[in-house]
Amino acid sequence: MAVDPSGGWDHPAHAAMARAVAASEDARGTTSPNPPVGCVVLDARGEVAGVGATQPPGGPHAEVVALRAAGDRARGGTAFVTLEPCAHHGRTPPCVDALVAAGVARVVYAVADPNPKAAGGADALRAAGVRVESGLLAQEVERGPLRAWLHYARTGQPHVTWKYAATLDGRSAAADGTSRWISSAESRAEVHRLRRQVDAIVAGRGTVLADDPQLTARTPDGALADRQPLRVVVGVGDLPAGARVLDDSAETLHLRTRDVDEVLAALAERGVVDVLLEGGPRLAGAFLAAGRVRRVLAYLAPTLLGSGPAALGDAGVTTIADAVPLTVEDVTSSGGDVRISAVPGEPGRSR
Amino acid sequence: MAVDPSGGWDHPAHAAMARAVAASEDARGTTSPNPPVGCVVLDARGEVAGVGATQPPGGPHAEVVALRAAGDRARGGTAFVTLEPCAHHGRTPPCVDALVAAGVARVVYAVADPNPKAAGGADALRAAGVRVESGLLAQEVERGPLRAWLHYARTGQPHVTWKYAATLDGRSAAADGTSRWISSAESRAEVHRLRRQVDAIVAGRGTVLADDPQLTARTPDGALADRQPLRVVVGVGDLPAGARVLDDSAETLHLRTRDVDEVLAALAERGVVDVLLEGGPRLAGAFLAAGRVRRVLAYLAPTLLGSGPAALGDAGVTTIADAVPLTVEDVTSSGGDVRISAVPGEPGRSR
Ligand SMILES: NC(=O)c1ccc[n+]([C@@H]2O[C@H](COP(=O)([O-])OP(=O)(O)OC[C@H]3O[C@@H](n4cnc5c(N)ncnc54)[C@H](OP(=O)(O)O)[C@@H]3O)[C@@H](O)[C@H]2O)c1
Ligand SMILES: NC(=O)c1ccc[n+]([C@@H]2O[C@H](COP(=O)([O-])OP(=O)(O)OC[C@H]3O[C@@H](n4cnc5c(N)ncnc54)[C@H](OP(=O)(O)O)[C@@H]3O)[C@@H](O)[C@H]2O)c1
Repeated sequence: MAVDPSGGWDHPAHAAMARAVAASEDARGTTSPNPPVGCVVLDARGEVAGVGATQPPGGPHAEVVALRAAGDRARGGTAFVTLEPCAHHGRTPPCVDALVAAGVARVVYAVADPNPKAAGGADALRAAGVRVESGLLAQEVERGPLRAWLHYARTGQPHVTWKYAATLDGRSAAADGTSRWISSAESRAEVHRLRRQVDAIVAGRGTVLADDPQLTARTPDGALADRQPLRVVVGVGDLPAGARVLDDSAETLHLRTRDVDEVLAALAERGVVDVLLEGGPRLAGAFLAAGRVRRVLAYLAPTLLGSGPAALGDAGVTTIADAVPLTVEDVTSSGGDVRISAVPGEPGRSR
Repeated sequence: MAVDPSGGWDHPAHAAMARAVAASEDARGTTSPNPPVGCVVLDARGEVAGVGATQPPGGPHAEVVALRAAGDRARGGTAFVTLEPCAHHGRTPPCVDALVAAGVARVVYAVADPNPKAAGGADALRAAGVRVESGLLAQEVERGPLRAWLHYARTGQPHVTWKYAATLDGRSAAADGTSRWISSAESRAEVHRLRRQVDAIVAGRGTVLADDPQLTARTPDGALADRQPLRVVVGVGDLPAGARVLDDSAETLHLRTRDVDEVLAALAERGVVDVLLEGGPRLAGAFLAAGRVRRVLAYLAPTLLGSGPAALGDAGVTTIADAVPLTVEDVTSSGGDVRISAVPGEPGRSR
């Protein structure tokens, strides 16, 4: 039986939602603790009338931005939103009211709002006579711009992506400690783009002592990106005066603890939703042992060392049955490196 | 500018050569030290008249098998061959003579014969008035059925594929030594199919002592495959009486040396062309250090351990600049595992 890859959605709907997803992606890193939502309003003839994304906290939501851009053209049109529109009064009035007031005839959203306070948007729209559909590009949104926020909305905890670079044999440096550069220029540039999109970068004190990293988002020419995540160093000991992570290129938080959940609680309190854990091996092991890594992003360089420090340290696993199972989401090439994105869990593996 | 993905070859030509490649692939493991060649003869109307593959040493070559099957239908037809037809008298008469005698009008081969003794086939065919073309599916053949033999023909050394299974963090077992099963059932079945196609499986004495492997090719139900490669154990020490590798399911060679090139010379002398090196970490390190691994086949299980033995031991590398550079050829999924095939060299990497 042939499966309809479009899920039954027509091409203009796909294109409109894809643009909303792109707007959503663009807003990443600027909206926490709110979700980086994207919205596209098509007029009654199917032309793009307005595009919007969530503004920084206190500012308007994506729907309102897109509706303002559309003006009268929203009447009888369709709004494509990456997240179910909210029906509750928060810092801003409900988006449902704005959509109804603008006379939108139909709303298509990608994923439902798991937040009980905000949910009910679809029902409220239907009650106001708006045709409501959902699920278009849902997977792209769940794995993409709203991944971290959806996790945060469900659990109250920041979403942690553990990113590491290693050789094909799992080494993060050679025996003499040298590691420049294990990963390709393209992989390193991608990591800088990723840093720009997250709320915080977390590293262990050991990495700061060993490598003195700046932990900033930079452009390929080395300049600081226009947005910098919070830099977080974890460890009870002191940081060396003059450590680059303490410079004034971005804010830095030193959390004097070894308790992973204390780290996450401190970050959640500051409105951090999306965390990039950049190691080192011991801190990554602690996060894994605590079950707090929601995604693993491995940049495996096509090279072999045969000795040198491992990319991952003790994660509390001593026997194969206790290995941390993952499911590979996607494998891509990154300047010759193999980039693997994986999430916890083991659906339907045959062993 | 659009690139013609067919390389200018028409569909029937592609289909015929693809079938020759499949015949070539089928013959792997039975022809050494001769190449496992495949041949398809189309009659003058373009219908398949005969298919053949190299027979075991002393038997006819692929072209002769296919021509015999085609009979009179070969006259005015085209022969598709994975390797340039030979023009020299070896244990069998030259294939060029057979093609000309059969009245074939055109010969298309995938890759040229690097063997100076055998070369000249294309010229001899042209001299006899046959139209000759080459290069169709060349990459498939070079990376596929003739990979090992082409290396052997160029260097006189057997081709070594180092195959290993590891976690995403490069461990081949947990801290307590348990490792069943790191890789998926699908990956393990693939390795058994691969074993059936090679001339020899090589392992270090440490692996025999630690795991007591049988080192045979088996079918998914555990039965011995119809063909078994030579089993080779490398190491100066004795093998335990009763080791499974010494059972009568296949022939076994114990090479009491630690010199990689002595191993390869002993194998070449026995007509071994295609070698699967299955570890362990120390022997693999020695082969890598000696520059004798021509392909790395990694089965990375989507799981993390954080401790336990590394998949690769000392390869003589102490600093990052000396890391063994590879180029990834392809990355596929194998029952949830990430399967990476890579070859030595670093063409055009940006670091
Ligand atoms: N390949 C990569 O992607 C990558 C990335 C980063 C680093 N590295 C390498 O990693 C090496 C550093 O290794 P490392 O293990 O020392 O680095 P680390 O994991 O960054 O730091 C270890 C330190 O983190 C603190 N810490 C916080 N919570 C902890 C916990 N639950 N358990 C244990 N420690 C905790 C401790 O500091 P206190 O003693 O102060 O409590 C500990 O000494 C460097 O050579 C660096 O190059 C590689
Ligand atoms: N993940 C995988 O794919 C995989 C595959 C195979 C094995 N393993 C694991 O590897 C472990 C065994 O490790 P291992 O390193 O002892 O195994 P190994 O590499 O198979 O064997 C080491 C032995 O090989 C001999 N040898 C031959 N040439 C050598 C050379 N140039 N340099 C050093 N040794 C040479 C030596 O034996 P003599 O002392 O007799 O000279 C040495 O003791 C087992 O736990 C096994 O499970 C994993």
